[in-house]
Amino acid sequence: MKNFKTYIEKNKKRFLNELFELLRIPSISASSDHDLDIRLTADLIKKHLLKLGLDNCEICETQGHPIVYGEKIIDKNLPTILVYGHYDVQPVDPLDLWDQDPFQPYIKKTKIHPEGAIFARGACDDKGQMFMHLKALEVLMEEGDLPCNVKFMIEGEEEVGSDNLEIFVKNNKEKLSNDIILVSDTGMISKTIPSITTGLRGISYLEIELTGPNRDLHSGHYGGTVANPINVLSEMITSLHDSNNKITIPGFYDNVTDPSEEERKEMASIPFNIDEFKDSIGLNLEHGELGYTTIERQSVRPALDINGIWGGYTEDGAKTVLPGKASAKISMRLVPGQNWKEINELFTKHIKNITPKTVSVKVIEHHGGQPYVAPTNTIGYKAASNAYEDVFNLKPIPTKDGGSIPIIALFEKELESKTILMGFGLDSDAIHSPNEHYGVSNFLLGIETISNFYHHFTKLSKG
Amino acid sequence: MKNFKTYIEKNKKRFLNELFELLRIPSISASSDHDLDIRLTADLIKKHLLKLGLDNCEICETQGHPIVYGEKIIDKNLPTILVYGHYDVQPVDPLDLWDQDPFQPYIKKTKIHPEGAIFARGACDDKGQMFMHLKALEVLMEEGDLPCNVKFMIEGEEEVGSDNLEIFVKNNKEKLSNDIILVSDTGMISKTIPSITTGLRGISYLEIELTGPNRDLHSGHYGGTVANPINVLSEMITSLHDSNNKITIPGFYDNVTDPSEEERKEMASIPFNIDEFKDSIGLNLEHGELGYTTIERQSVRPALDINGIWGGYTEDGAKTVLPGKASAKISMRLVPGQNWKEINELFTKHIKNITPKTVSVKVIEHHGGQPYVAPTNTIGYKAASNAYEDVFNLKPIPTKDGGSIPIIALFEKELESKTILMGFGLDSDAIHSPNEHYGVSNFLLGIETISNFYHHFTKLSKG
Repeated sequence: MKNFKTYIEKNKKRFLNELFELLRIPSISASSDHDLDIRLTADLIKKHLLKLGLDNCEICETQGHPIVYGEKIIDKNLPTILVYGHYDVQPVDPLDLWDQDPFQPYIKKTKIHPEGAIFARGACDDKGQMFMHLKALEVLMEEGDLPCNVKFMIEGEEEVGSDNLEIFVKNNKEKLSNDIILVSDTGMISKTIPSITTGLRGISYLEIELTGPNRDLHSGHYGGTVANPINVLSEMITSLHDSNNKITIPGFYDNVTDPSEEERKEMASIPFNIDEFKDSIGLNLEHGELGYTTIERQSVRPALDINGIWGGYTEDGAKTVLPGKASAKISMRLVPGQNWKEINELFTKHIKNITPKTVSVKVIEHHGGQPYVAPTNTIGYKAASNAYEDVFNLKPIPTKDGGSIPIIALFEKELESKTILMGFGLDSDAIHSPNEHYGVSNFLLGIETISNFYHHFTKLSKG
Repeated sequence: MKNFKTYIEKNKKRFLNELFELLRIPSISASSDHDLDIRLTADLIKKHLLKLGLDNCEICETQGHPIVYGEKIIDKNLPTILVYGHYDVQPVDPLDLWDQDPFQPYIKKTKIHPEGAIFARGACDDKGQMFMHLKALEVLMEEGDLPCNVKFMIEGEEEVGSDNLEIFVKNNKEKLSNDIILVSDTGMISKTIPSITTGLRGISYLEIELTGPNRDLHSGHYGGTVANPINVLSEMITSLHDSNNKITIPGFYDNVTDPSEEERKEMASIPFNIDEFKDSIGLNLEHGELGYTTIERQSVRPALDINGIWGGYTEDGAKTVLPGKASAKISMRLVPGQNWKEINELFTKHIKNITPKTVSVKVIEHHGGQPYVAPTNTIGYKAASNAYEDVFNLKPIPTKDGGSIPIIALFEKELESKTILMGFGLDSDAIHSPNEHYGVSNFLLGIETISNFYHHFTKLSKG
């Protein structure tokens, strides 16, 4: 195996500059204010793919944001890797909690990243991780070493549910055919302990809106005589968990199987310090479903969270209003056995059942995705494991991730191939939060590990 | 008694134009963005007072928004009426529910106001009602008929708690000395049934902020392992009422006395149709404290309402965030016997007691005011009753109002005089709500009734 370190080290500064250019475009997919930014980002990625010498590069239009595609087929008899990533990013609010402009990337040393970390929205999720794949391909191309075929599919709607990618995949099964799918959109256990994500939770994301009186009322004239929609919403939210923190939606756990003793032992052996976990996010106290550890709660157990709530007067000062409406965004993380479409139905039915007659309710579905599990006894997993070991001198640990990449389960169904989740982010990278960042060394080691993967996978595929 | 109708009818158009000029200035006291508007409004009122020939007109500076003062002492041996009103208005959000710009007043016919109603923020509360007093004084002056002394005190912070008026009143007892205080900032039973407000609820307005994790987290990676501050806030809010809709704060009802059988009978005799009430605000179902009627619940019983709630992602679309903070604005309406300062203490203590260890809590006090009761056997009440009867050909009904004008209780304490609450608004006027309006005929009949009051009060005072 060639040593790619030298090339990466030599070109490091340019790699970072190119990533910064990408990070400067505020490609927030959730807001139509950024439609032009989304377009500019897709254009820039296509430019990179063309420059790498990929063929059939195109910006594929969808009903929403476009998908960037490119491929290099060197020999039809060689295996094909499909790289998936996304160029859209999460919204940035609350903006006042960012130390600097989220779209003016800069490098700052941190305790965890003493060599420096790239600070920007999307630095890790997923522009930084996705860009490693472009640079790994450059490494392979420039060193004259591309050992197999490769296809790139980079979308712009991952943060809003990948609805149009789903259609694209279903309509382009031939074009996207592959032997393995490679994705970097997850994390590793720590800076020095590599891991491969072998499971993802699914997601159901909905919104409920309650309407009480037909307008905002004066809370003095009406207070005490009208069911306040905020109070009603609070009661409904409260009732969604019981005193053991189990979710109370009938049927919710029907298809959830408890982890086996062996699985629980395996999870217990993952290097994880509960005090460090609590410290890292400023918690006083653990919290969660009775009878499970924190690692179990965040990986193999489902969860229900209120992602947002609003109603009435929320500005400075005081307004004596008894509001007409109250709303909440609610998401559930799902585990193998649960189907997000069924969960949406159970949720909606239950919400309608528990809504008192004093208000009316509207349930809005946002997006959903199935849970995913990847076995560790495949060529893909072994190739990834070897690639990590080359770079980190340590066998990666298989872990299950609490997050969701809904499209991964769909890939398995439609393209009939497994996905290898080679993530290089850290929990402390604050993705989806203010001051998102990504370690410079994680970025560079990621490029090297991915480059190695191509060789290991090609070699193992040849048997 | 002179008939003022002719003068009012003749000058109606100008009266409305002058009011429109006042309504066009967005004097929202809750937001410092409108400090200049507040100032412009105070200036305009001073101009009106000067034009009416009042003496010692001045804009009295405070730590906050200024108070406009003016007086006409025609004879020290005659009784003195102190008119109180406010020129500040409530915020206008949600702006998208207004049919037109809240600060571009216009007249539109409605079912209840077939002669037309003035639509604008402040049309009723309190610019329209306050302006009736300026125009009543004009009527009396122009008809050569001012029978007693008058003082005007118009403030700019009623909607934010009147903190600086309190200081002003305490420091100017001599200047403000009077025989009766006259206020139009309440309502009447219906367009044809006049009423005089003989009681006001007090208010305690606070805010609570919960902090869980030290930042917004990714709800996938952390969901199930962290107490979500929105869920915790919902639980705490839910626990503030029991299943009979009684408030659970220990000691809250200690000084509340139940209405007597006689009072209950009197209240039951007020013309009030529960179906019309429900229809007017689009309710399916009555709601409130067990064992009391709607009229009792909104006047002689205390209430607790969430005026606003917020946390996490509240924009369009979906963001998978587990928020670090959640907040709610909470107000309580108080009845005689309750002291808002004691209630604030009980509330704060209780909130701290019920906050689980998974989060930290901050309680912020906004404003408060004591409840108020006015007897019906006074000269002031009788004068008002006669004035209404002159204009409406119907004896007004004494009613207790669920709203709060905190300064009224303070007037009684500091100035040792009672307040007569001559309100001409209707419940359907949507004060504090989008599309606030005020009937043109309510405005004109109000001017006439107030003009009559001066005469009745002077006559009855002379014995």
